[in-house]
Amino acid sequence: MSKSKLASGSRTKWVYYFGKTKAEGTREMKQLLGGKGANLAEMTSIGLPVPPGFTVTTEACDAYYKAGRKFPAGLIDEAHRNIEMLEKETGKQFGSDDDPLLVSVRSGAALSMPGMMDTVLNLGLTDRSVEGLARLSGNRRFALDAYRRLINMFGGVVMGVDHHYYEAEFDRIKKKHRAKLDTDLNEAGMTELVAAYKKVYRKHTGHAFPQDPFDQLSKSIAAVFGSWHTPRAVRYRQINEITGLLGTAVNCQVMAFGNLGEDSGTGVAFTRDPSTGRNEFYGEFLVNAQGEDVVAGIRTPQPVAEMKKWKPEIYKQLLGVKKTLERHYREMQDFEFTIENSVLFMLQTRNGERTGHAAVKIACDMVKEKLIKEKDAVTRVPPNDLNQLLLPSFDAKATRDVLTRGLPASPGAAVGKPAFTADEAADRTAAGEAVLLVRKETSPEDIDGMHAAQGILTSTGGMTSHAAVVARGWGKPCVAGAGAIQIDEKKQRITVKGRTFSTQDILSIDGATGEVIAGAVGTHQPKLSGDFGTLMKLADKYRKLNVRTNADTPADAQRARDFGAEGIGLCRTEHMFFGDERIMAMREMILAETEAARRKALRKLLPYQRKDFEGILASMKGLPVTIRLLDPPLHEFLPHDGQSQKEMAESLGVSVAKVKQRVSALHEQNPMLGHRGCRLSVTYPEILEMQVTAIVEATINCRKKRINAQPEIMIPLVGVDKELSSLRELTVATIAAVKKAKKFTGKLDIPVGTMIEIPRAALTADAVAPHADFFSFGTNDLTQMTFGYSRDDVGTFVPQYIQQEILERDPFQSLDTTGVGQLVEMGVTRGRSVRKGLKVGICGEHGGDPLSIAFCHVTGLNYVSCSPFRVPVARLAAAQAALNDGKASVNTTL
Amino acid sequence: MSKSKLASGSRTKWVYYFGKTKAEGTREMKQLLGGKGANLAEMTSIGLPVPPGFTVTTEACDAYYKAGRKFPAGLIDEAHRNIEMLEKETGKQFGSDDDPLLVSVRSGAALSMPGMMDTVLNLGLTDRSVEGLARLSGNRRFALDAYRRLINMFGGVVMGVDHHYYEAEFDRIKKKHRAKLDTDLNEAGMTELVAAYKKVYRKHTGHAFPQDPFDQLSKSIAAVFGSWHTPRAVRYRQINEITGLLGTAVNCQVMAFGNLGEDSGTGVAFTRDPSTGRNEFYGEFLVNAQGEDVVAGIRTPQPVAEMKKWKPEIYKQLLGVKKTLERHYREMQDFEFTIENSVLFMLQTRNGERTGHAAVKIACDMVKEKLIKEKDAVTRVPPNDLNQLLLPSFDAKATRDVLTRGLPASPGAAVGKPAFTADEAADRTAAGEAVLLVRKETSPEDIDGMHAAQGILTSTGGMTSHAAVVARGWGKPCVAGAGAIQIDEKKQRITVKGRTFSTQDILSIDGATGEVIAGAVGTHQPKLSGDFGTLMKLADKYRKLNVRTNADTPADAQRARDFGAEGIGLCRTEHMFFGDERIMAMREMILAETEAARRKALRKLLPYQRKDFEGILASMKGLPVTIRLLDPPLHEFLPHDGQSQKEMAESLGVSVAKVKQRVSALHEQNPMLGHRGCRLSVTYPEILEMQVTAIVEATINCRKKRINAQPEIMIPLVGVDKELSSLRELTVATIAAVKKAKKFTGKLDIPVGTMIEIPRAALTADAVAPHADFFSFGTNDLTQMTFGYSRDDVGTFVPQYIQQEILERDPFQSLDTTGVGQLVEMGVTRGRSVRKGLKVGICGEHGGDPLSIAFCHVTGLNYVSCSPFRVPVARLAAAQAALNDGKASVNTTL
Repeated sequence: MSKSKLASGSRTKWVYYFGKTKAEGTREMKQLLGGKGANLAEMTSIGLPVPPGFTVTTEACDAYYKAGRKFPAGLIDEAHRNIEMLEKETGKQFGSDDDPLLVSVRSGAALSMPGMMDTVLNLGLTDRSVEGLARLSGNRRFALDAYRRLINMFGGVVMGVDHHYYEAEFDRIKKKHRAKLDTDLNEAGMTELVAAYKKVYRKHTGHAFPQDPFDQLSKSIAAVFGSWHTPRAVRYRQINEITGLLGTAVNCQVMAFGNLGEDSGTGVAFTRDPSTGRNEFYGEFLVNAQGEDVVAGIRTPQPVAEMKKWKPEIYKQLLGVKKTLERHYREMQDFEFTIENSVLFMLQTRNGERTGHAAVKIACDMVKEKLIKEKDAVTRVPPNDLNQLLLPSFDAKATRDVLTRGLPASPGAAVGKPAFTADEAADRTAAGEAVLLVRKETSPEDIDGMHAAQGILTSTGGMTSHAAVVARGWGKPCVAGAGAIQIDEKKQRITVKGRTFSTQDILSIDGATGEVIAGAVGTHQPKLSGDFGTLMKLADKYRKLNVRTNADTPADAQRARDFGAEGIGLCRTEHMFFGDERIMAMREMILAETEAARRKALRKLLPYQRKDFEGILASMKGLPVTIRLLDPPLHEFLPHDGQSQKEMAESLGVSVAKVKQRVSALHEQNPMLGHRGCRLSVTYPEILEMQVTAIVEATINCRKKRINAQPEIMIPLVGVDKELSSLRELTVATIAAVKKAKKFTGKLDIPVGTMIEIPRAALTADAVAPHADFFSFGTNDLTQMTFGYSRDDVGTFVPQYIQQEILERDPFQSLDTTGVGQLVEMGVTRGRSVRKGLKVGICGEHGGDPLSIAFCHVTGLNYVSCSPFRVPVARLAAAQAALNDGKASVNTTL
Repeated sequence: MSKSKLASGSRTKWVYYFGKTKAEGTREMKQLLGGKGANLAEMTSIGLPVPPGFTVTTEACDAYYKAGRKFPAGLIDEAHRNIEMLEKETGKQFGSDDDPLLVSVRSGAALSMPGMMDTVLNLGLTDRSVEGLARLSGNRRFALDAYRRLINMFGGVVMGVDHHYYEAEFDRIKKKHRAKLDTDLNEAGMTELVAAYKKVYRKHTGHAFPQDPFDQLSKSIAAVFGSWHTPRAVRYRQINEITGLLGTAVNCQVMAFGNLGEDSGTGVAFTRDPSTGRNEFYGEFLVNAQGEDVVAGIRTPQPVAEMKKWKPEIYKQLLGVKKTLERHYREMQDFEFTIENSVLFMLQTRNGERTGHAAVKIACDMVKEKLIKEKDAVTRVPPNDLNQLLLPSFDAKATRDVLTRGLPASPGAAVGKPAFTADEAADRTAAGEAVLLVRKETSPEDIDGMHAAQGILTSTGGMTSHAAVVARGWGKPCVAGAGAIQIDEKKQRITVKGRTFSTQDILSIDGATGEVIAGAVGTHQPKLSGDFGTLMKLADKYRKLNVRTNADTPADAQRARDFGAEGIGLCRTEHMFFGDERIMAMREMILAETEAARRKALRKLLPYQRKDFEGILASMKGLPVTIRLLDPPLHEFLPHDGQSQKEMAESLGVSVAKVKQRVSALHEQNPMLGHRGCRLSVTYPEILEMQVTAIVEATINCRKKRINAQPEIMIPLVGVDKELSSLRELTVATIAAVKKAKKFTGKLDIPVGTMIEIPRAALTADAVAPHADFFSFGTNDLTQMTFGYSRDDVGTFVPQYIQQEILERDPFQSLDTTGVGQLVEMGVTRGRSVRKGLKVGICGEHGGDPLSIAFCHVTGLNYVSCSPFRVPVARLAAAQAALNDGKASVNTTL
């Protein structure tokens, strides 16, 4: 419950005013007023030039839905009282034909959702008041233009009239008046246009355009509330994992006109460069335009630096605003402004979306500038943003067949074939193709396809267009406003300077340079900036969790070390059986009918395994390497098609029938729940013996070369304590036997532990722990069994579960703390209850997920292990978990 | 720790004496002295004529294994002191050539394991003492016969010399002396035989037969200890689920000779008829024979009633023994005796194995006779024994082509084709064939095959032969000693009175009459005795758990009601989709591409479902019927072979490609963990709507006919609370809609509950319970997921797990209380924490398993549900759980 709610007694306060007389909100009230509303109030308080207005709360939105889409009692009264306050402050009057009060109506939730919510401008215009505006502005054409915009937006947003009915009329009238651009249409044309728009409105709604501004207002508020539950808004919240919000607030604010003529304009700016993070004033503006024109990407705006020439005093004022905002918010801000007849108005500010590179640089710079503290720098960068710094970019030395250059809207390198609609991009990606979404401009409806595509290329729109903002938020490469490209959506082709590309041609886009390139350009590993290193050092300073990596090859191991991995938490051994000669020995082993024959085949595999282990142990130079013994069912090593079976039979000198018979005998109804993991070692102990022998021999070989190899042996899929006790006994005996055979007299001290991935192992962890030197939670399988979900098969229902909010998120991406988490906690607590200080880690894919890492921190794990590229993410997430007391700081900059 | 261990201070007492001077043991000390040792001491105490002896404890056996098969310190000393006591009591001397002390050495664990342990008789005979025995008995042939038996048994049991080497010598010498039977061999032949046996012994052991009786003794004790871990002993304990024993005790007892001539004999008797339970003295004896001859089934003995003619005074004495034993033990006893020169000696007593029929009758009779109390009667009958009373027997009116009649060794009707070895019986059974194991006699090595076969038929051996005892213990039909049958194991055929039967001919055996019949005889349902009804009434009086049944058809429902089911706990609906027309409508539904097309197909299924539900609801007349909504994945309803797919395509008027494509789309890697259960209802709510509509319409139709239908709707496979809340909402809405459409104004009150079978549902039961009117634990799936075992696939390792004692028992047969049980407890506790008095049941197959039922009782469940035939078992097990404070009373009569 918000403070002000308490302050106003038992009756809920639905509306908060901001203006010269008072600003009822503060920036802390985002949950209640939305980000936009809270910051409009805040900016008002700190003296920035904000047109006055009021905010209808998110609680009102919630109450509206709870009442079955009905306004709560008192809301409309309060809104009217606030309109009266605005009239008092501005001296204007709502609906007046003398000096009419006009307002914008904008949505604004606690988290910004670019382009998701609908806006109505110029509200308050009617047949009557439009004349007042004409008089007041001395520009009748402008007044009519404002009116036709209102009819268009109100019709579209509030009444659901399709935009293209208006567009058709506009085109017809422009043609008639021989106007090329919208701005070419004269006053007479505008008069016709207003009449035509009103006709369109009446035809498609069945009613005349409302002439009561209060009627316009309440309908608009309802429409903003309604937009909270449109499929596209719901989908955006899903993609960005936004939950727990009450709804959207509604901001009504006195209009400032950027389209009053050549002394007016509108723009969007960032206090620092959101792409590079450099501390430079950055932004764009359009002269004689209304706010939405910039964001929508329909006209390509000018860089804000150009403003020095156009309005040097305003430019200076804006530099002051930049400073004020950063001093006050101690964060990079993204703000909107409008200049009405050479007067600056601030329409919005918020923490700015930025690329991963920028996030890191800004955080480090602000520490240097003493704007923020070290800990703030650590908690401020969303861990997943680091992906952008770590993923490959184009090889600078590669020859590039550059077709054209657009705006470098979101850095990164993307290669793919053009897809011309969002649906097509989504479908072809699902079918395994790499595609680039190529659009004139993108719109919120394109979200799915944008998310699916490798990268986004638009032919219009600027650095702050929908495509650019969304792509940067995701860290997806985007080149915007590449005007030289002609897109023929119908014929599914692109033409650039006479060259044509179809859906089957490969293009590359470089989001860092804006280049659009024919063909596939080779990629290379990124160079990590000094700021990245600084941030990682800070993260390491504050985190409690160790971070290891999942790696099966020396190359992966090396990369992970470079990224700061403190060991290997999961080294799978099954991939080592797939080389040409190896797989044959493996198959010989599987086909063997006696232990002796199996041992013979295993002896062939031993040298390969030993060599692999030597490589990995050596590459980790003294850091621990947790080696998991063979896990998958044996049938995964046999061929399933007739031809390969025939080849296998020939190669092994057995009958095809025998091969087929073995394949069929090993077939399982549910291989996930079958004969695999330690169950293989129980039935074929000689496999375990071979693997342990290889590990120990590799270790001894390393030690002899003075490489401090530190293997740890991990027995997978234990569900019953006696599985582990008996296999541990065999492992220990094998280690001793190898030591003896190799006459190695030094200390080896190889820990033997287990994965906790079967629910029963977690439930009985106190019985398992006495036999384990460490636990490693295999949360992939643990999730599969706790939910009863086969990861291979859930595609038929889990997406729908997320859509229907039955599941908050995909439990394979982010650990289900409610259910699976209980088993993890149990495993830790019960394991340590009998073995104090038991080392416990996690090696499922959750080990690289910030939310899951926060859980691991709280649960007292010793380490997380994740794929090499996730290691920096995990380091940062671990530090944030430590600093935030276990809460993940995901989405903080949205 | 045993009392006596404490009494003797810190040093462990390894040996307990029983004789005239003192009996150190009591019948309560079975864990320490084994059943045989404890009862020998007890019988000595109550004045029965027991030859004196002593018992080496099971703790000694345990210590022996713990020390790596070495005797614990002090054991041999104590044994020697006890031999001295025996010498004092009998006036004989160990190894003496004057009046030698001879002892038997027998194993005896806490639970009797017929035929599993090895015995050595006549121990103490040497080249020297055999002359003493000859002198003393005045029968040199007898003494030599005793000596050759010792050499044979000692060689076999202690030194591992194969029996057939001795047999070959015996045959050779019999031939030479023209002796047909063993008993025909004269003294000269016996002298030769002893020499030949000694030669065999030396040849196969490398040593002369030991001439120091103390040496014989310690070697024999070690051998008995060793027999505890022979594969056959281990296997027997597995089959009978015997765990937690320390080992076997060893009983050394002064020899009583039943083979001293025509005034001697040996026998086995029961205080009541173990087959029918009638209170009649029952048993068999052999004149001039040693004890093992009766049990081994080599000679066919005479019924004990014949003794009246042979030795009336002994017969009278035995009737007295019968009375004494029953008064003392208050249980039916199975005892062994030997008559040495017209003097009776008791060699063993124990609770007698009996058939299920006998167990019930004896329990009820003993209550009537005031020997025991009602509660004793209830706890005394092993619940699983009731199976024997409930399973079909041969139709009395069917014409029987009776080939011959053997002994009715274990009642029941079995039909199958002959298998001539245990391995063959096991293999062919595993391949799906019904076989009868046909053997001249069975031996402990045959355990597996005996267990696998439908029934057992032997041509020699009596009612107490190995085959008979073991079969009765299992409730498996057995006809023993059918002497007219000639078995040719090599040619795999049986000849009876000129007719020949091969492995492909069907035979029937009637274990209640002893008849062996050509061809398959029809079976019929058993008539349940009044005693059965009495016992069930007693059980119902004491049990707390309700017992329901799992039934999908009116016939099953009716049978279960007859067996006392108090409702249906699980009515599966998927079987109802498999009729000819139904499956086509089902397939049409699965193939449908739109909701409308699915609804159209579902409308065709509705009348079938409604009719099925009406039948089941009507047959349960007012008892609750829990109906589970569709559970299996849809692909189970589609054909998987090309021909059937073609037929399906034709029948539905679609292309084969479409059918194939759908089959392939529905294919899952791990169907157990895939798109099934409530997940189907979430994605295809119209299926749920159809099923609920059918249930409600059926209920209304029943009510209109004044049948008090009481359905309960159960939603399967819930893992996430919101699955249930949303499906419950839809269910409630559908119920209301049908009521309205049918204009039914009465009360329906249909509870909506869920199965708890996903680990996560148990872990989050407090979130699930608010939406559930009841919980039913689906412990089959819960076990699969908690262990990570697919029931279809565990055959490759679970048997080995049980053999290696990694698992105590198959978790699908008996609920794993350690792991899965935790989830059940959690589900109950957390569910009831938010919904007081929540009704909770179990409907997995564990619902019919006595051990699991005991757990359900302790955990506070309201009911168990099991297959109709298990209902009486469950009623009894539930009563035992209530009386035993949650401990199952399985194996109590072993």
